[in-house]
Amino acid sequence: MTTYFRPSIDALSPYVPGEQPASKVPVIKLNTNENPYPPSPKALKVLQEIPGELLRRYPHPMAREFRQAASQVLGVPADWILVGNGSDDLLTMIIRACTEPGRSVAYPMPTYVLYRTLAQIQAADVVEVPYPEDYTLPVEALVAAGGAVTFIASPNSPSGTEIPVELLDKLASQVTGVVVIDEAYVDFAETSALDLVKRYENVIVLRTLSKGYSLAGLRLGFGVANPTLLSGLIKVKDSYNVDAVACAVGAAAILDREYKDENAEKVKKSRSEMVTALNEFGFEIWPSQANFLLVRVPASVRAEWLYQQLKERGILVRYFQQSRLADKLRITIGTPEQNAALLDNLSSLLQKS
Amino acid sequence: MTTYFRPSIDALSPYVPGEQPASKVPVIKLNTNENPYPPSPKALKVLQEIPGELLRRYPHPMAREFRQAASQVLGVPADWILVGNGSDDLLTMIIRACTEPGRSVAYPMPTYVLYRTLAQIQAADVVEVPYPEDYTLPVEALVAAGGAVTFIASPNSPSGTEIPVELLDKLASQVTGVVVIDEAYVDFAETSALDLVKRYENVIVLRTLSKGYSLAGLRLGFGVANPTLLSGLIKVKDSYNVDAVACAVGAAAILDREYKDENAEKVKKSRSEMVTALNEFGFEIWPSQANFLLVRVPASVRAEWLYQQLKERGILVRYFQQSRLADKLRITIGTPEQNAALLDNLSSLLQKS
Repeated sequence: MTTYFRPSIDALSPYVPGEQPASKVPVIKLNTNENPYPPSPKALKVLQEIPGELLRRYPHPMAREFRQAASQVLGVPADWILVGNGSDDLLTMIIRACTEPGRSVAYPMPTYVLYRTLAQIQAADVVEVPYPEDYTLPVEALVAAGGAVTFIASPNSPSGTEIPVELLDKLASQVTGVVVIDEAYVDFAETSALDLVKRYENVIVLRTLSKGYSLAGLRLGFGVANPTLLSGLIKVKDSYNVDAVACAVGAAAILDREYKDENAEKVKKSRSEMVTALNEFGFEIWPSQANFLLVRVPASVRAEWLYQQLKERGILVRYFQQSRLADKLRITIGTPEQNAALLDNLSSLLQKS
Repeated sequence: MTTYFRPSIDALSPYVPGEQPASKVPVIKLNTNENPYPPSPKALKVLQEIPGELLRRYPHPMAREFRQAASQVLGVPADWILVGNGSDDLLTMIIRACTEPGRSVAYPMPTYVLYRTLAQIQAADVVEVPYPEDYTLPVEALVAAGGAVTFIASPNSPSGTEIPVELLDKLASQVTGVVVIDEAYVDFAETSALDLVKRYENVIVLRTLSKGYSLAGLRLGFGVANPTLLSGLIKVKDSYNVDAVACAVGAAAILDREYKDENAEKVKKSRSEMVTALNEFGFEIWPSQANFLLVRVPASVRAEWLYQQLKERGILVRYFQQSRLADKLRITIGTPEQNAALLDNLSSLLQKS
């Protein structure tokens, strides 16, 4: 077959998302950082009562209802909010609006793998700056990279580490391009860099309802930035990128802050307990402000072996095929029952090895 | 403010979708070609019973459940189907996978305005071939255009005219790039070009659930093509582009063929009645196989004036700010009551003028 694709697409290895077993398979899924608790009952009630008329008509192009709800919750004007089909949709808009061959995309590594894939699709130049072992943000090297776009995930994945706002502030003040602060996991953290959008015209903060709000299946995320920065992203946005169901259900979910906070507290408590337990098994753990832990496995086992053994026992964790992460696993915090099952299995696997 | 965008984005006039008044405003909406009848009751039942667990977890990256349902209904293998967040999502994937500066996008004009916008976002070269007044497909000129991608809407918008399969066949056999046959309105037509995907490796047929299935608010569309052609599109697809609700509800909708066909028959009957009635008022009408009519207004009035007058009376139709369409309106077929209200208002407006 002739190739019909651009050379950069032919050359591209596609992004591989974490395994998603069919929902009927009984598996403890600690590999893609979903929230272990169900979505807000108020959001589910809205879902059950969606009228057919809302499906028959096109949705609002800017997801008005959700935008207004987010505006109220965050205390920023509605026109500072751009809603997307998941925060990945915002990442794509930013890449498409701001980058092309000859313009670079910079980010510290390791981080969310999709940044690289999106830059490669756009055939933009990629500058990857290694994080030091303690995951302190390499501000100077990132400034020197001169990215038209600089991506910073905070808390970062897969490390779980939070970037102090002072360092993000310093970065934003020194880079000339757009700084994207991807706060997908902020609902499990103590601080947020949201206020930076008011002080820097080049900063956009991304949020998602996939993690804190237990709505990964709904696809809903948003960006917060000044309207001038958003105007360029809106030009590349799909006309009706957010469906009417996500808009209505998401609005109810984000307004139910109390429920979200309760679940986040439960996850944080479990996270602390898991750190203690895993430390006792000999795992080295990075300080996490997210709903997962990056762990270096004890020297007696290989990480890939442990991943495989857990998988055979019906527990999925994330193993990354990257040299720097070869001795590590990323483990999502589950319910107390799921966490206990993981610890039980680790205990027997580590004794055997 | 410094510009952070690519020059082609700064230069871009964004696509403007049809007006979407807030759903509480009582308006007869005949401007964006929604189906006037509600979605399938079977689809709504699935919606009401979506479990929270389906929202908590990430959706299937390829929208497995919907893909299998579409495969069954269309009689093509599941791996020949790529599902998108509306068929606009498929258009974007095609543009991003196949075009870049120096590669061209060709289409006959006037047609769906988004083709131009998407090509401009990608900074691809654009070749627009004028349709003759009777909307016969200009095959030779399109072949000569040498598009890496050639878009053909059939039935076409805004003309409503269907392109005979023989002409699409001839086009597909002669162009070297990808031929996209956008069948958004096929559910109201007598024929489909779907079989061409089996004979030509460069043909992809697009479908949507927005029109025939009354699910514009859900955002669900798909492309049918050979797996090799789809493989390049999948590389640029958002990881989780279709949410779990759209996947489940859409599967139930597409399986309920009988309900869709009943509504389509009602629309076609109304279309025929509207052609007769509008002809009597002195409108010139293009032969439509879609759920709308392109009409040239009687010489006694201006199309823009008529659009405005109808809007003041709570009836939205589509007026395009394009020289060739300046004396025309595009009118969606509504319910019998909505159509009657339109005719009543036209009657009094044309008498007054």
